Amino acid sequence: MSLQGRYDPSNVFARILRGELPKALIFEDDKTLAFMDAFPQSHGHCLVIPKEGEARNLLDAEPGILGPLALTVQKVARAVQAALSPDGIVITQFNGEAAGQTVYHLHLHIIPRWQGEPLRQHGGGMADPGELKATAARIAAEIAP
Amino acid sequence: MSLQGRYDPSNVFARILRGELPKALIFEDDKTLAFMDAFPQSHGHCLVIPKEGEARNLLDAEPGILGPLALTVQKVARAVQAALSPDGIVITQFNGEAAGQTVYHLHLHIIPRWQGEPLRQHGGGMADPGELKATAARIAAEIAP
Repeated sequence: MSLQGRYDPSNVFARILRGELPKALIFEDDKTLAFMDAFPQSHGHCLVIPKEGEARNLLDAEPGILGPLALTVQKVARAVQAALSPDGIVITQFNGEAAGQTVYHLHLHIIPRWQGEPLRQHGGGMADPGELKATAARIAAEIAP
Repeated sequence: MSLQGRYDPSNVFARILRGELPKALIFEDDKTLAFMDAFPQSHGHCLVIPKEGEARNLLDAEPGILGPLALTVQKVARAVQAALSPDGIVITQFNGEAAGQTVYHLHLHIIPRWQGEPLRQHGGGMADPGELKATAARIAAEIAP
């Protein structure tokens, strides 16, 4: 799919927001939602999405949603660091299929990295839901109230 | 270098901010600076950095700088799209050497992607400064005043 286009409300993250699909929740406020990626590229791979608006990507997002989104990304990344002690953390955000985007609701990846451990293919395999919930709980416990 | 550590004011981006090193400027406001990556992974590879504070990465950044930073990233990414018409745009932000970070001043990459064209190695080769300035001018011309 190209960079331009209409928002499709049947995308997976919109369905998660509507409660039609399960999620391993990490954090939620009135503007944003953070949960575990079900097809993780590494242990602790999280996603942060805006709750409002119909942004497919960063380019078509209302500027007003970006500040709250960035704050949640930082909050969750700090909690990932505290909970899992990775050697590094990659933040990525893909715009368009040519950039690696597969779900067309704006989202940011928080991907912990460990020295010498290559990333898994995204969408390579679905994680065990129980394991994801356990990791989500460990990360959530490190988020300051 | 690990995720934790002290900010080193001799890093390349701090030197660019102090005017000690040249840059191909795209955009500047009171909080942020956008310029071309001198070791581009693709044509049009840009960087956005905060001007204030001494953040090595996203984890140790003052939350207050994140909103302005995100707005500039969107502004420049939209201008890249308008100026260069890539098939996709990747946004990345690396925390720690294990995540691929090489300069320890918080920065975000805006990397245009073209279908079928692989990314170059980061730091693989320095771009021609004149070419970078020309690309920066094309992108800057698309930024709404």
